[in-house]
Amino acid sequence: MKIVIAPDSFKGSLSAVEVANAINQGVQKAYPHAKTHLLPVADGGEGTMETLVSATDGKMKAVFVTGPLGGKVEAAYGILGNGKTCVIEIASASGLARVPEGKLAPLQATTYGMGQLIKQALDDGFSSFIIALGGSATNDGGAGMLQALGAKLLDREGNEVSFGGGNLANIADIDITQFDSRIKESSFLIASDVQNPLVGLNGASHVFGPQKGATPEDVKLLDENMVHWANQIEKVTGISLHNQPGAGAAGGIGGAFLAFFPAKMERGVDVVLKYVNFDDYVKDADLVITGEGQVDFQTASGKTPLGVAQAAQKRQVPTIILAGAVGEGIEVLYDYGIVSVHSIVDQPMTLQASMANANRLLEKSTEQIIRAYFYLWCQSLKTRKFE
Amino acid sequence: MKIVIAPDSFKGSLSAVEVANAINQGVQKAYPHAKTHLLPVADGGEGTMETLVSATDGKMKAVFVTGPLGGKVEAAYGILGNGKTCVIEIASASGLARVPEGKLAPLQATTYGMGQLIKQALDDGFSSFIIALGGSATNDGGAGMLQALGAKLLDREGNEVSFGGGNLANIADIDITQFDSRIKESSFLIASDVQNPLVGLNGASHVFGPQKGATPEDVKLLDENMVHWANQIEKVTGISLHNQPGAGAAGGIGGAFLAFFPAKMERGVDVVLKYVNFDDYVKDADLVITGEGQVDFQTASGKTPLGVAQAAQKRQVPTIILAGAVGEGIEVLYDYGIVSVHSIVDQPMTLQASMANANRLLEKSTEQIIRAYFYLWCQSLKTRKFE
Repeated sequence: MKIVIAPDSFKGSLSAVEVANAINQGVQKAYPHAKTHLLPVADGGEGTMETLVSATDGKMKAVFVTGPLGGKVEAAYGILGNGKTCVIEIASASGLARVPEGKLAPLQATTYGMGQLIKQALDDGFSSFIIALGGSATNDGGAGMLQALGAKLLDREGNEVSFGGGNLANIADIDITQFDSRIKESSFLIASDVQNPLVGLNGASHVFGPQKGATPEDVKLLDENMVHWANQIEKVTGISLHNQPGAGAAGGIGGAFLAFFPAKMERGVDVVLKYVNFDDYVKDADLVITGEGQVDFQTASGKTPLGVAQAAQKRQVPTIILAGAVGEGIEVLYDYGIVSVHSIVDQPMTLQASMANANRLLEKSTEQIIRAYFYLWCQSLKTRKFE
Repeated sequence: MKIVIAPDSFKGSLSAVEVANAINQGVQKAYPHAKTHLLPVADGGEGTMETLVSATDGKMKAVFVTGPLGGKVEAAYGILGNGKTCVIEIASASGLARVPEGKLAPLQATTYGMGQLIKQALDDGFSSFIIALGGSATNDGGAGMLQALGAKLLDREGNEVSFGGGNLANIADIDITQFDSRIKESSFLIASDVQNPLVGLNGASHVFGPQKGATPEDVKLLDENMVHWANQIEKVTGISLHNQPGAGAAGGIGGAFLAFFPAKMERGVDVVLKYVNFDDYVKDADLVITGEGQVDFQTASGKTPLGVAQAAQKRQVPTIILAGAVGEGIEVLYDYGIVSVHSIVDQPMTLQASMANANRLLEKSTEQIIRAYFYLWCQSLKTRKFE
């Protein structure tokens, strides 16, 4: 009996690694003969770098960079266990968590630090990159990143423009003659589920601006500036990012990757599953267990449990989902090889209590479900008791 | 695939019949080919009569009797589907629900109405009785019941004593010459899990008096009176009820049955399982689903789910438990053929919300668990999909 345990984090309570460990405890209690493989996963959002590094037994390298508001911050990039692939998460250098409480500044926030991380990794000899775009505090269209990598963004007087989406309108010229030449020799796999274009009502500023602190007036200005930025990019590269799906990811940094980098965008969970070698583990497995804090009909639109189930289904391996909260409409998940969806909550309790006890609840519910699931398995092996 | 659905009620939210229906809905959604048998059960406590009548397709007969406080109440006895066995529940005539809010009177409350129910059933030609002892408001040692059936309880002046445990001390003589002679020709199966003796710190008054409204002073008086009552009974029958296990059931009416009736006491759930012909249904079943509002280590001390699982285990059929709340220590249940215990709660919520939505939650959780449970079953039948 071989079980692959591939959960996402339970946001606000347990990391993906912790969730996997708790599920494993429950499996072992129910069925000590089970062989388990723990492959904590992520959907490309915040925590993806940590999960990939941990799952592949890789390592982190700390780098001091410019934070989103211009100060120095200690960020990091990850090196996967293969020693060749580098994983960089925008949240590490330019993320919301880098901004002090109440100090969000969507007009000024820059991705310069993100560019510095890439530069350092290039300096360290890496040429294969996974880029995770969750959790950015920026709306600068990736302008800062390009600057950090050698591009000059000049105003009419030929001076470098200031950081942030609020200053994009001042750009009169993008000079890429000194843009880091190692980039075109490298590969960039962008892990992102965002399909939004760069500009307009579905664009970066309108959809994601508010959660980065933008007022309605800010949003209007940021979107106008982003149109200007897209025009300037088109002038230099011939590429129109305006309505390009995915260009709106992470405050428009998605667009900068698409226009200036040899980049490919893939669904976050698929990138992660590829690099944790999910298929190698699942191909002879009997069951996959995944999980996420909340599971409902929206899970079918590409979240971690769905991606895991789809990858397992290709190998005809069934998937069970554990969740803190199981919402409505989960029937849509059955088509993707998902056998069942179970809440870890064992009695009426507050959200706070369920989060504080998530570890114990995961173990307990896993034990019970695995007991139910494998009863017939054990019967078919003619062992009447769980041992 | 044959499933026996044999739950208790979820107290305060759903009757056993409603629970069974909700579980059945969930089973049918998960696995429409399942053949289900709905056998709502009970543990001898309040609701046992209704459950037995419903499960056997029997009927109720309304009878006007004297309530616990002396007024007229409409009570009822049940006739099982076999047309021969009569089920009488003390709660119907002499129960807590018969006493208006705030009017509990443990010194005065009488089981006279219970005796009247038995008398009416005897008059109607019945001679086979199941007696359910849950939910009594009385602490009179069954004195009122005996009076209703012809016994004379006389004080020193030869006058009939007044109702209630508070007046037992006045009894100088028990005259059973006119005690209904049909009783000794009948059989009485007492469904009760109570092992408490009639008197003392573990006796009826000390253990159950407080929940019937007895103050510490009342308890002391009631217990002293109960000793006197036991002495009087021993004088007449030669039977010492004082320390007899079970004599303390339902304010001591258990003792009256043991001393004056051809009575046998059995664990409540076993009585119910016998009369709903549980064994006939379970013997070729593949799975039993039972449930109760709260399941924890105490469930192993003889509650409905345990009795159901034990009866299923005799036929080597596994049992799954559903509960509103799954407490600690459930591992002790595994030895009784219980495969797993699952909460119906699907996300953090209040007790109130879980009770208000118990129907939907039962259906939803059953569906998921049956999907998990039968995945391998379906695989073994080489049908890849649930149909």
